Parts: sequence; structure tokens; C-alpha cells
Amino acid sequence: MAKRVAVVGAGVSGLASIKCCLEEGLQPTCFERSDNLGGLWRFTDHVEEGRASLYKSVVSNSCKEMSCYSDFPFPEDYPNYVPNAQFLEYLKMYANQFNLLKCIQFKTKVCSVTKRPDFTVTGQWEVVTLCEGKQEATIFDAVMVCTGFLTDPYLPLDSFPGIHTFKGQYFHSRQYKYPDLFKDKRVLVIGVGNSGTDIAVEASHVAKKVFLSTTAGAWVRSRVCDSGLPWDMVFMTRFLNMIRNSLPTPIVSWWMARKMNSWFDHANYGLVPEDRTQLKEFVLNDELPGRITTGKVLIKPSIKEVKENSVIFNNTPKEEPVDIIVLATGYTFAFPFLDESVVKVEDGQASLYKYIFPAHLQKPTLAVIGLIKPLGSMIPTGEMQARWAVRVLKGVNKLPPASVMIEEVNARKENRPSGFGLCYCKALQSDYITYIDDLLTSINAKPNLFSMLLTDPRLALTIFFGPCTPYQFRLTGPGRWEGARDAILTQWDRTLKATKTRVVQESPSPFASFLKLFSLLALLGAIFLIFL
Amino acid sequence: MAKRVAVVGAGVSGLASIKCCLEEGLQPTCFERSDNLGGLWRFTDHVEEGRASLYKSVVSNSCKEMSCYSDFPFPEDYPNYVPNAQFLEYLKMYANQFNLLKCIQFKTKVCSVTKRPDFTVTGQWEVVTLCEGKQEATIFDAVMVCTGFLTDPYLPLDSFPGIHTFKGQYFHSRQYKYPDLFKDKRVLVIGVGNSGTDIAVEASHVAKKVFLSTTAGAWVRSRVCDSGLPWDMVFMTRFLNMIRNSLPTPIVSWWMARKMNSWFDHANYGLVPEDRTQLKEFVLNDELPGRITTGKVLIKPSIKEVKENSVIFNNTPKEEPVDIIVLATGYTFAFPFLDESVVKVEDGQASLYKYIFPAHLQKPTLAVIGLIKPLGSMIPTGEMQARWAVRVLKGVNKLPPASVMIEEVNARKENRPSGFGLCYCKALQSDYITYIDDLLTSINAKPNLFSMLLTDPRLALTIFFGPCTPYQFRLTGPGRWEGARDAILTQWDRTLKATKTRVVQESPSPFASFLKLFSLLALLGAIFLIFL
Repeated sequence: MAKRVAVVGAGVSGLASIKCCLEEGLQPTCFERSDNLGGLWRFTDHVEEGRASLYKSVVSNSCKEMSCYSDFPFPEDYPNYVPNAQFLEYLKMYANQFNLLKCIQFKTKVCSVTKRPDFTVTGQWEVVTLCEGKQEATIFDAVMVCTGFLTDPYLPLDSFPGIHTFKGQYFHSRQYKYPDLFKDKRVLVIGVGNSGTDIAVEASHVAKKVFLSTTAGAWVRSRVCDSGLPWDMVFMTRFLNMIRNSLPTPIVSWWMARKMNSWFDHANYGLVPEDRTQLKEFVLNDELPGRITTGKVLIKPSIKEVKENSVIFNNTPKEEPVDIIVLATGYTFAFPFLDESVVKVEDGQASLYKYIFPAHLQKPTLAVIGLIKPLGSMIPTGEMQARWAVRVLKGVNKLPPASVMIEEVNARKENRPSGFGLCYCKALQSDYITYIDDLLTSINAKPNLFSMLLTDPRLALTIFFGPCTPYQFRLTGPGRWEGARDAILTQWDRTLKATKTRVVQESPSPFASFLKLFSLLALLGAIFLIFL
Repeated sequence: MAKRVAVVGAGVSGLASIKCCLEEGLQPTCFERSDNLGGLWRFTDHVEEGRASLYKSVVSNSCKEMSCYSDFPFPEDYPNYVPNAQFLEYLKMYANQFNLLKCIQFKTKVCSVTKRPDFTVTGQWEVVTLCEGKQEATIFDAVMVCTGFLTDPYLPLDSFPGIHTFKGQYFHSRQYKYPDLFKDKRVLVIGVGNSGTDIAVEASHVAKKVFLSTTAGAWVRSRVCDSGLPWDMVFMTRFLNMIRNSLPTPIVSWWMARKMNSWFDHANYGLVPEDRTQLKEFVLNDELPGRITTGKVLIKPSIKEVKENSVIFNNTPKEEPVDIIVLATGYTFAFPFLDESVVKVEDGQASLYKYIFPAHLQKPTLAVIGLIKPLGSMIPTGEMQARWAVRVLKGVNKLPPASVMIEEVNARKENRPSGFGLCYCKALQSDYITYIDDLLTSINAKPNLFSMLLTDPRLALTIFFGPCTPYQFRLTGPGRWEGARDAILTQWDRTLKATKTRVVQESPSPFASFLKLFSLLALLGAIFLIFL
């Protein structure tokens, strides 16, 4: 009999998990608390308990070619960075295409997931759910937890002395939906993550004044850089990753800072990170520096004191009147339906082997999918996690002994720098390509570029020097996709199609032609000299 | 007796003209049609006849250090690019500082300016004004026309076949004030000038869909480029201008295109100019490419046909539903109070010597100030025009014979390329530094960099390699300003102060220190080898 798998949550990782279960012949049942799929990508006007909450204007941070499921490219007329409503459409298309809806029970909250008494033998779990007031307990052979990490707001109120005396409105960024409430107000946004910068920029279009306060600073990038090509398609190549990882950390950090400062000097704009040795997630925002240089957003250091109607920042004794405070202080996560003995969360980290399996369970029948922030797209990362995890749950792939897994987890907690490549801070956690390659290796799905160089050199070179798009993960091994090669070779076509909606016949500049001719002659000359 | 000068209009050029008259001992009377000063920079919720009209969000296109009056820097806490409300405050400060208000008659429309019967002898004009229903005729020795060129909308409706059948709303960009009317509508903006792109971008935050249609395309720049320094402070230096003007046009055009494409490839974003040999004004917009790559603004070619509720573009037979059309088709200009025999406007150009004096008048007693679009700031350009013009009106400086002036005007109309430097299209009209230097030379106010190199090398080098800020024009000659040198040497301080509102103690990167040490050693080695 096929193993029954409970999937908790029908967001991007939940959908991938259901599909992977079906692909491997398992029998998934997905419990989704809300009344529809899409998880964080489903915008609603009101915040829903237990589900991540978007503001109306959210656009994906990684481009469509980098952030699709590996066997399901976005439609070619989609924009390169996908607004949330279209992203949700895409997820619905995916669910329809692979017939996932039949496995999802909506409006069903998972109350508890507990080991069965015979767990050490069977590895089974009892899952108690609540649907329309009716509680039900079901036994599953395995559980995949896909609840994400953007649901529980982190609210360090103690860091803002006096905030309880503040007479204006203050709330966590999770509550934010539309900019209208900022009209003609003096707004303070605390935190320069993606939400904080987005909210400050949006507020600045309607507010009287906007302060953006940050203690740590951040590297801010634009979706439009490198001649307007999507940043992640340029940054995330196997070639550049190899170079980065083989250079000493100080050189890579210096190069990265240089690159980041080429758009605007972060020190001159008050945004420079305090700690430039450990890399945090980039903040992606196209407008922030423009709003700073036009005086619409004022960057400020940390807060010394909040008063009844004003705030004092740490660099000046002047009181700044403020009407609204938005705490864009990020998220924490927890598994309320799991006992702490199964997964323990400490200091913002869970003790999970490869970010997936609890290291100390007697049976590897519970996997956490999508609890990772790679410097890359979440969707293919979660999908590759699910592909491997499902094969472990099925028993095809084995985990190493507990001692090895615990050691891996501890090493990660220590976050000891290797001295080479980028040094990530704990919150970011992982080097995208290296991590995914590792998962692919476990299921024998990593393409061999050396042999491919002989059989299909064009593809091999595109894979090595081009963007590391998710189609690469479906070229071979279990779950191989026929369309992968073609999708890789046409990835730039789909990218350019999105923006090149007016075409002008280019008459080549005479100087550019001259340059080309000159280069050709120089090359021929060099070849001639070599053979002389 | 001091000569009486009528100044028409109290905008940026009008204010400069009043001040220059006072400085030279003339007696100016400024007639301003509206009830306050500031001209185009005074935002009102409703469009006023005869005055340029701003939308709420307008921000200056050239930075505060480049666009101030030459003896009156912006306050140092002003942002680098000044929003319109603050710009108006600055103009009011200027008027107060130099006591200009007493010379302005508000709510006074100039109905006609005609030559007196004895004009050939006296050069006098009769100015008929209308104030609160009362007409009055006054005799003036000279007239300065400062009415600008952004008042009369250019509406080429014939270029949009079928527009009269369109059932939605359509209007010229002059009518635009706030983005609210675009909420959930399908919007088409025609024209990629500064207004067109601004309006499309603003609409895209609230509209259902936004098309931006352009026939000619445009180079779009961001206020944030060159590491975040104000673009004009980097671009507009005497050093770079010299290099540009001494290179053949094809090389300069190629270099310019390369520079423009470094932010984003204009061909890939559908914006590439059709004619890349003649340079038009850059469009300054920080957000447009970001809105294109997120699919919020769709660039389209010219319009084939407008239907009742839709539009067909020239590259596809598909009808696109549209609710609102904004014609951002620019402006034309005219002088309704002047007879055509005084100033004739043809093909968007007036026959004015150095863009100021009608070439064929018997007496040089009428000057048009600010009727020029330099690739640089309007304020100092108008101010320098006024400085020279006032000295001509006063009789201190002489104009060349009519034949010379007419030849200059005709040569400009032909717009024959010299083969060197940037090739401007007619609409743009002028190379900023060259034009201003020419005016300064006429009044002996151009600083001599060669002699300065000996007497004040720091200042000379700053002037040559640094931004060509207006303070340079007040170092010497009539109207010399004591504070000019200091203003030049502190221009970068005021620029950085505006954005560096959070300061982090920089710990130098070990690699950067190593690089510096290495460079120093290499330099020492080289010096050693030279002396060996």
C-alpha cells in the first residue's frame, strides 16, 4: 500500500510537496487552514491568523526564470518580476496542470502532529485536524511541514523605549495593506528589510514626511541593474559562484561592496551596513535611493526614545514629530502543532539536518520544507527539498547516522567562516547553488557538465556561464523533464519578450562598426603572429 | 534718470531679471498675471490660464547645487533634487533676500507691448496692462519678456486617427494633477517626455493597466547614477565638456549611448530612440524601468487608430481596451501681447539672437529671457541671460550689426552639425557650458582658469574638474559675489549632507587596505626605478 503523507499548508512548498509525493507514488493529503491555495502569495484585504500577509503592491524579488517550479516555466508574456496577483495565478495553473487540488482539504487547521506509540517501529504520526468545528484524528506514515516562516511577527518592543507612551498608531508591517492611511501623516518605519523599504517608499508618495530607521543598515539593490537584465540571472551563475567560492572572503566581500555601491554609495545615502563581513539578504527596491535624494525618505539611525507624539533618534537630540510608526522588524517562526521534542526552535534556528529533517528522530518520517532563506528563489529551493525529502520518506534514500546529522546542525549554528567565498549571516543561511547541488546529488539528478560538454556543448556552456535557472534541476535523474533542455536554451527569449514591446530597427553606429572591425583585425593579427 | 524696464512674468527668469535690473541701477516693474510669484513652480490644484501647470509630485530635474541662482545657494538641508513646494519656498527666499517683491504688480495681465511712434529714436515701448478690470498704458524704456515656454499645450490630435470617436476621457498632460483618477482604469499615456513618463509611472501604482506610447523613443536617466551622485554634477564639468566637444560626433554619440544603456538596455526595454545621432533632452525618471520589468507599464509604439473604447498600436492588430488617454505631447509657445513683427515664432523657434534679442529691431530694447532649453539647469541660464541682457538694455554692452545677428539665428535654424561633440536636436538647442561662457565673456565675467591656476590652484582645479555650478559665474566681473569661492569649495559638502543622515564608523576592509598598500609600494617602486 502506498504510504500516506500529511502535507501541512498549501503554499508554494506545500504544492511542490504534494506534486513530489504523487510523482513518487505516495498518497498525499494536504491540510490548508484557509479557503484557498497560494499561502503567502494570496493577497487579502484583511490579515488572516496563521497565514502570511502581503501588502497590495508586493512584487517577487527574484525574476520569473529563476523563481519558477523547475518543470513549469512562467508564461512568456508574464513580466520579469511578477506582481502577487499574477504569481497566485501561476500557482493555480501549476496546481491544475499537475492535478493537485484533489489532494487538498481547505479550511482545515492542523491542531497537533504527534508520534504514534509505535513510532520507533512504524514511524507513524497521528494528525489531529479541525474543520468547520469538527475535530478528526488520522494516522499518516509521514508528515511534510510546509508552513513557512513569515507568519509570526517579531516585535522587539523593548528596543524602543517609551513606545507604550506613544499616542499615535503603531503596528507591525504584517498589518500593512495600502498606503492610504499615511496620507499627510509623519511616518516612521523601523527596519530596512524588503517590507520596511517598500512601505517607506510607498508612504513617501502620500505622507507629509517619512523616516526610515535602521540600526544595522543594508545593501539595497534594484531589480534593474547590469544593463537592465534581471539581477539574479546575472549574479546566480555557476561560473560566478565558482569564482566567488574560490576567492578569500575579504576579496569577495570587497568586490561585493564595490558592486553594491556602483548604483549608489551606501555610506553617502546613510544605508551602509554596520557589519560588512557577514552578508545578509539584499534588500531589493528600485525606488529607495531616488526617494532619499529627493528628500521624500530620510534615513535615520536607531531610536533612542519614543515620546507621546515624537521620536528621538540616536544621532541628534532633536525631537522629530511622528504620527504613525510601522515596525518592519521581521518574523519569527514556530510549530505550534509539534512538540518541542520533535523540532526545537532556538535563537531563530531549527535543528534540522540540511534544513529539513529533525536530526534526532528515530525514524526519518517528518520533513520541514521551505524553512530556509537562500540567496536565491524560494520556490525551486523548496521544490528540490521536497524532491529529496519524499524519496527519504519513501525509503529510497537514506539519511546518515544521527551523530553525523547532529554535527552538521551544530556546525551550522556555529557559523564558522571557511575563509573563502561569501560569508553569510545566520539569518540568510545558505549558498543557493551549492545547497541545491547537494540535494540533487543525493537523488542523482545533478547534471554532469563534463560529460555534457562532449555530448551537448551548447547546453553545457549555457548551464555553466548562464543563469542557474531551475530547469537545470530536471535534466536528469528521477523526475526528469523532457522540456528542460529547451526551457534552458530559450530562457533569455522569455526574459526579453517581457520588456521589448516596442522594436526599433537598429542602424549600427559607425563607430561601433569600426570598433568591431578593429577588434577583428587585431584578433586576426594576433593569430597570425602566433603561427608565425 | 534710471531707465524703466517692464518685466513680464514673475517666474524664475522674471525674478532674476528684476534682480539684475536693480543691480545695474535700472528701475524694473514686473507684471505678474497670477496672485503670487514662482511661475511654473507654484503648484495649484486647478489649472490657471496663462500659467504653466504642475502636477503634485513634480521634483526638479537638476540638482540643487546646479540649479540655484548663482549667488544664492539652496539651504544645505534641502534635498538634492528639490520637490516643487520647497522649490517655491526657495524662490520666495530669493525674492525676500534681494527685496524683489516691491517691484512686482500681481494680478496684472500684460495685454499688449507695442513700439512707441518714436521707437527708432527712443526705443520705448507702450505696455498696456489689465488689473482688476482696469486697463492702463505705461511707457517703458525697455521690456524683458519672461513668460516661459510651458504654458500652451501642443495637441497634435491629427496624429491619432479616430481620437474624436473615443468615448473615454482624454486630456493634455497640462491638466494632470493627482493620480487618483487613474484608479483601476486602463490608461494610455502618449509621449515619453518628463511629464509622460512621470504620469505613466504614477498611474501604474493605482491603475489596472498602463500603456506608454512613443514614436521617437528617448534616453531615460535616473537621478541616481554614477554611485548616487547627482547626474548633472558628474556630467556637467568643464573637463568632460572639453573632451566631448573635441571628439568626433560618432564617437561621442556612441559613448553617450553606452553610458545611457549602462542602467538598462533601451532596446530591450522598448525605449531606444529612433534617431540616435541627434541628442534630445534626456528624460529623468528613477522608476520607469522598474515599472516596465514588473509589467506595470507597457511600452508601445505609435498609435494606428483610436476606437470608441480601445486603441490599436502600430506593431500589432490587437485592440487594447483603454479608459483614459493622456496626451503628454509637450508645449508650444507664443507671445500674444507682441506683434509678429517684433518676435516671430516659426516651427517652434523664435528668431532671437543668442536666444534673447530679436535680430531685426532698430533698437535693442526688448529681451526674451528663459526661452531656451539647455542640457542643464534653467535657473542659472535665465539668470546669465538677464545679466547680459540688462547691460545691453542699459547701453553698456552693444549688440553686433543686424546682419551678424540674423546670420547667427539662421545658422541655428539650419542646425548644421559641426562633426564634433554632441549633436543636439533643435528642440534642445544648446550646450550649457558653451552658451553660458559666451554670455559671461560678453560681460567680462568669465573666470580665467589659466591665471587662477597660479593664484588659486585649488579653486581652478575644482572649477575645471568639478561640476560647473552657477557660483563660478559670480567669481569676477560685474555682479561679482564674495561668497562664490566658498560656495564652490563646499558644494559637495552640501550635496552629501542631504542624504548622509545616518553615519556608520567605517572599518576599512582588509582587502581595500591591502590594495592601497600595494598601490603605494608600486608607486614607490616606479619612482625608484625612474631615478635609478
